[in-house]
Amino acid sequence: MTKVMNVAMIGGGFMGKAHAMAYAAMPMFFWPAPAIPHRKVVVDVTDGMADEARRRYGFEESSSDWRAVVNRPDIDVVDICTPNNVHAEIAIAAAKAGKHIICEKPLARTVEEARVMHDAVKAAGVIHMVAFNYRRTPAVALAKKYIEEGRIGRILNFRGTYLQDWSADPDSPLSWRFQKKIAGSGSVGDIATHVVDLAHYLVGPIAEVNAITTTYNKMRPLQQGGVDKLGAAEKAADAERGEVDVDDEVVSMLKFEGGAIGSLEATRNAYGRNNFITLEIHGTKGSIHFNYERRDELQVMFADDPADARGFRTVYTGPAHPYGNGLWPIPGLGIGYSETKIVECYDFFSAIAKNRQPSPNFEDGLRTELVADALIRSGETGLWEKVG
Amino acid sequence: MTKVMNVAMIGGGFMGKAHAMAYAAMPMFFWPAPAIPHRKVVVDVTDGMADEARRRYGFEESSSDWRAVVNRPDIDVVDICTPNNVHAEIAIAAAKAGKHIICEKPLARTVEEARVMHDAVKAAGVIHMVAFNYRRTPAVALAKKYIEEGRIGRILNFRGTYLQDWSADPDSPLSWRFQKKIAGSGSVGDIATHVVDLAHYLVGPIAEVNAITTTYNKMRPLQQGGVDKLGAAEKAADAERGEVDVDDEVVSMLKFEGGAIGSLEATRNAYGRNNFITLEIHGTKGSIHFNYERRDELQVMFADDPADARGFRTVYTGPAHPYGNGLWPIPGLGIGYSETKIVECYDFFSAIAKNRQPSPNFEDGLRTELVADALIRSGETGLWEKVG
Amino acid sequence: MTKVMNVAMIGGGFMGKAHAMAYAAMPMFFWPAPAIPHRKVVVDVTDGMADEARRRYGFEESSSDWRAVVNRPDIDVVDICTPNNVHAEIAIAAAKAGKHIICEKPLARTVEEARVMHDAVKAAGVIHMVAFNYRRTPAVALAKKYIEEGRIGRILNFRGTYLQDWSADPDSPLSWRFQKKIAGSGSVGDIATHVVDLAHYLVGPIAEVNAITTTYNKMRPLQQGGVDKLGAAEKAADAERGEVDVDDEVVSMLKFEGGAIGSLEATRNAYGRNNFITLEIHGTKGSIHFNYERRDELQVMFADDPADARGFRTVYTGPAHPYGNGLWPIPGLGIGYSETKIVECYDFFSAIAKNRQPSPNFEDGLRTELVADALIRSGETGLWEKVG
Amino acid sequence: MTKVMNVAMIGGGFMGKAHAMAYAAMPMFFWPAPAIPHRKVVVDVTDGMADEARRRYGFEESSSDWRAVVNRPDIDVVDICTPNNVHAEIAIAAAKAGKHIICEKPLARTVEEARVMHDAVKAAGVIHMVAFNYRRTPAVALAKKYIEEGRIGRILNFRGTYLQDWSADPDSPLSWRFQKKIAGSGSVGDIATHVVDLAHYLVGPIAEVNAITTTYNKMRPLQQGGVDKLGAAEKAADAERGEVDVDDEVVSMLKFEGGAIGSLEATRNAYGRNNFITLEIHGTKGSIHFNYERRDELQVMFADDPADARGFRTVYTGPAHPYGNGLWPIPGLGIGYSETKIVECYDFFSAIAKNRQPSPNFEDGLRTELVADALIRSGETGLWEKVG
Repeated sequence: MTKVMNVAMIGGGFMGKAHAMAYAAMPMFFWPAPAIPHRKVVVDVTDGMADEARRRYGFEESSSDWRAVVNRPDIDVVDICTPNNVHAEIAIAAAKAGKHIICEKPLARTVEEARVMHDAVKAAGVIHMVAFNYRRTPAVALAKKYIEEGRIGRILNFRGTYLQDWSADPDSPLSWRFQKKIAGSGSVGDIATHVVDLAHYLVGPIAEVNAITTTYNKMRPLQQGGVDKLGAAEKAADAERGEVDVDDEVVSMLKFEGGAIGSLEATRNAYGRNNFITLEIHGTKGSIHFNYERRDELQVMFADDPADARGFRTVYTGPAHPYGNGLWPIPGLGIGYSETKIVECYDFFSAIAKNRQPSPNFEDGLRTELVADALIRSGETGLWEKVG
Repeated sequence: MTKVMNVAMIGGGFMGKAHAMAYAAMPMFFWPAPAIPHRKVVVDVTDGMADEARRRYGFEESSSDWRAVVNRPDIDVVDICTPNNVHAEIAIAAAKAGKHIICEKPLARTVEEARVMHDAVKAAGVIHMVAFNYRRTPAVALAKKYIEEGRIGRILNFRGTYLQDWSADPDSPLSWRFQKKIAGSGSVGDIATHVVDLAHYLVGPIAEVNAITTTYNKMRPLQQGGVDKLGAAEKAADAERGEVDVDDEVVSMLKFEGGAIGSLEATRNAYGRNNFITLEIHGTKGSIHFNYERRDELQVMFADDPADARGFRTVYTGPAHPYGNGLWPIPGLGIGYSETKIVECYDFFSAIAKNRQPSPNFEDGLRTELVADALIRSGETGLWEKVG
Repeated sequence: MTKVMNVAMIGGGFMGKAHAMAYAAMPMFFWPAPAIPHRKVVVDVTDGMADEARRRYGFEESSSDWRAVVNRPDIDVVDICTPNNVHAEIAIAAAKAGKHIICEKPLARTVEEARVMHDAVKAAGVIHMVAFNYRRTPAVALAKKYIEEGRIGRILNFRGTYLQDWSADPDSPLSWRFQKKIAGSGSVGDIATHVVDLAHYLVGPIAEVNAITTTYNKMRPLQQGGVDKLGAAEKAADAERGEVDVDDEVVSMLKFEGGAIGSLEATRNAYGRNNFITLEIHGTKGSIHFNYERRDELQVMFADDPADARGFRTVYTGPAHPYGNGLWPIPGLGIGYSETKIVECYDFFSAIAKNRQPSPNFEDGLRTELVADALIRSGETGLWEKVG
Repeated sequence: MTKVMNVAMIGGGFMGKAHAMAYAAMPMFFWPAPAIPHRKVVVDVTDGMADEARRRYGFEESSSDWRAVVNRPDIDVVDICTPNNVHAEIAIAAAKAGKHIICEKPLARTVEEARVMHDAVKAAGVIHMVAFNYRRTPAVALAKKYIEEGRIGRILNFRGTYLQDWSADPDSPLSWRFQKKIAGSGSVGDIATHVVDLAHYLVGPIAEVNAITTTYNKMRPLQQGGVDKLGAAEKAADAERGEVDVDDEVVSMLKFEGGAIGSLEATRNAYGRNNFITLEIHGTKGSIHFNYERRDELQVMFADDPADARGFRTVYTGPAHPYGNGLWPIPGLGIGYSETKIVECYDFFSAIAKNRQPSPNFEDGLRTELVADALIRSGETGLWEKVG
């Protein structure tokens, strides 16, 4: 009989929504499920917010005291959906309490935090995962499959971008994402880490980076209310302003341990780009291209195709591809953000069921923090910086 | 306080999965929700299948007796996710029992069935809806908004396609979708009706059609097991075969009551097309293009743009567009099949909450059946056939 | 030694430009050339216009008397670049004078004219060609190659469009293209014939059609000056107006002699579409898609590709594809309108050199006129109309 | 009366073809033309090759002695279409002889050569141009127009790529393009300089670079015959091999004098990319994207578009855009490589007619060499290198 596991979710914002949906939907998609996640307790800042989150997200109970919750004996899994500044504290407490942990990305604000978190989960022997969901996109997993099967040969080059525009307007509010003490860094931690995770997944460890980091908008209107607005909503040209002390954009060259070279660019100021995560990988036998804004599709080119029929194939993922059995019966029905989170949830509970660390786990998350740290250092020194 | 409503879902296949997910997720997305759907009972063919569906889809109870279930006083909503041949019987019983009804598309196998169903819900005074989910895609709703606001002017021309390839292989199994007694028709009922629904939504009533219908593969291997495989899975060149007595493809010209002309094409035999629902609409002030395989995007061209900057805009839907408040915080995070069903669920319960019929309701579904009927008649006569 | 052939070009408008360029460029591209076209005489309406055309297009002589020119013994080739209303007269005279003829499309205003033209060239034993240049696009020729080699199997379905927007503005001038006495028909002759030619080339003879034809703008401002403006330039809302007596749009279903079905749409009123010639062909073993606005590319899908790597390939044409030896050294350098005309010129002189009729010749052009005639008839009767 | 100018073209390979076509076609397209180029003498390595080039390209005379030709008093223009190693010698001689000069790109193998060439043309007072044709693409010129008119605001970021795959196969021959003594450098000089030219044109001077350069294939089969094959044609796994002493790929970060940052990547080893020149520019009021493989189109996004209709517009260039009067009467007829070269020819002779240096002239070409030199230096030092 499939085991029911009690989840305590800390944080009821946009990420809470995504995770709660995944808990409900995962067994519907992947059946028999590795476990049935039970939405046991949701935690938010106040009792009122927590209770509303309970009703909205279908949890059994609510609380504003995460410490008490993570120590409850009936909790199996702690899910950290908070801003970055409390990831470490919660994760360490949860680990000490022996809970399995899924933590939103980036793992931490700094390498030091990430290291302590990793030490804690390792010591506790729990299952741990960082929620870099984009590698759960079936098309990305298909790219991984092609690469592992050698179908594009040895990788020469990786190019990754993550371009958004929600902070391009200088009058959009000073979200916590612009504050170092909460976020740790700006585009580096928020979005470049996704690209780093994808690069690690598909190509292998990054060894060195050489980066430019820049802040285009140095002051922003103070945000009214506690909820993160992602910029667009409440512009206020004449409001009181606070300082942005993180980066808006990072451009970097990469060297991989395996010999490949590459580049990475992440910005939240690229008008017209929304969630433009792109990958292009050139190998000795073919190439791969992916654009998350068209995430049902993977572009792949095999060099040994006949001369008169060579070109990128647009493969729509479906039952014949990774995670295909659990998703929709034909390609093109549609992979959305929901599906990436449902797959993530499946992989997390599968890891628990098999008692085998998933990827990316906290060790991978730490490795990504090391790259983020190297990016920021290189942005300051202008030199190649080794990772770790 | 948001009302909890008990749902009885009849049918636990692919559509059951989509609906169950939507019941769980809808309040998470659209909050405050118009109602909290409670997954009360799921019905499937056998007790064993029903119990498995219960566990998988998170229902409280299960049953193999839909008649008993639809007559239970604690049921508020009946959701019909079965093959087409039992839509009428269930819907009529549910209407008589005073339940609100959401029925998968197409509404019925024939105009006659649809008419009786419509009479039943009208007599019962319940809320009724047909699950043509593609018009719930935010980009399609955005097209509707542009049209209603006059931004592309008077509509001259509509072109719609629905191209798939899951039945292109002549050795793929004889699903119920190839059998007239169960499905009513082939590509006409299964997929062309989606295009008709979109045409009705965006342009208005179709007045006349002139069609070709054709069946490419007249015999197919008998299917093993009860579950509909949508072709790909179990090919069997040497299996015993049964007759296909429905159409594989329909091509039609259209005349709308409002004066526009157009065309429609639907086929399940177009290699390389997966769920290729496309719309192109030309108006006196602009044009619209949509391709469901890239469903986050709407293409729109405004004729009064400056001469040196005219062209289709690729608009990624997000918070600034229909249903944007309930979905994801920035465009491009991703609309999948799940999101279309969550929106559909929201619109259905909103209609119940407001006690106002949603669209498409059974009257719209009947209208679509009338067009389907005209398509099939025209395919036989080779003449323009009036709708209804 | 490559033979030099003297060309007399009748008409110095947009088409004259394209042809003159091709005469100069063809041997540069295809070398050794089948012949060296010598720009001997250009003819235009007045002596002044003709002399200017001579200087502009690099001809040796000019004239305003086409009759005299086509009868000159030193002329080998007559090139008809005039409006449609004088195609027949010039072609018949040129045939009688024993000249090889290339005639712009459509061949004639009516089937009757086309038939007499065809009789004339047949009687004269000269080489004859109709300038349907779009089938000269390398990507279209590649589609032909795939089809002939059986790589997409038996053709089930053809869908062709030709969408433009230069006449969408009701204040754009009354070009000769809107006048039946000069043009013969509207979108049918002007652009639908291109699609018909492509359908004949790729699929085979069309047997029957069933069409809607419509005229959206029934009066237009009289045009000032003799040159055809293709709408955009000189709009005049308050000018004196004349009647449009041809169709703006045609939508049709098609039945091919070989059993395939299909559709065709041509309009000059589709805002946002410029020269949007698209083809989609579904076969029993694969599919082809082409969009002339991205003419370097052919999309092809092979059904027997491995299940995890199936999808349309985007093939950029180059040296490995038809006409590749004569064009550019790598794919993607770029096929423009010029290159289609250079290839056309090459095929025409190759036919002369080999003394073998090219395709499309006047017989093919007549066949296309028969389809155009059936389209117009069907637009009037609302019935399936047989071709010829 | 339009002046006829005598052209001596040195080099009869692929570039000779493109230039000869442009000389013939330019006045046909841009009329009245700034001058009528007369194809007077073509020079190639041997008398036989030169005579064949004469017949093929429509020149009046041929020669194998470029020194004699550039000193002929009847020559007005010298056109250098040779490999890079003789650009300097010919250009300097032509300048001394007082000829106007158009030179293929890159201007020279080294900064030193470029500087001497620039000094020579400056001293001679002749008109000089470097044939970076891609900025002549109408869509690129339209991007320039938007930027100059401030329509995308201040430029924050530039990303340029030039990806090809013709040298990806390690068995493709050792073209002169792989030999430093002839080519000067590899991907840097051959293709990255095009991106540098585009960056200079659109954004302004590059101040500093930080690059990786790499050579993937260090030995290649010796090439048989004198003609450059661009890799694809004659593979020979077992042939005698020679050393590649230039770079296959360059990846770089950029800092512009005006404050923008950016990146550049050029490779000839990216399977599936043919002539993939892409630009993306983010400004404070909008963004621009261009892909030369779809060169009829410019993508532009204006941040001040209404919230519900924001997105990249796909603008097909035509009469309403730069060079539109000279090219084709409606957008989408098609810009190919030919058209870029015809526009280049027009700009060159316009400069002569106006006695005003065109852009890019040898000073611009020198500036580009300085960037190329900095790229190579940085590839060696791993440090930010200042330009010049």
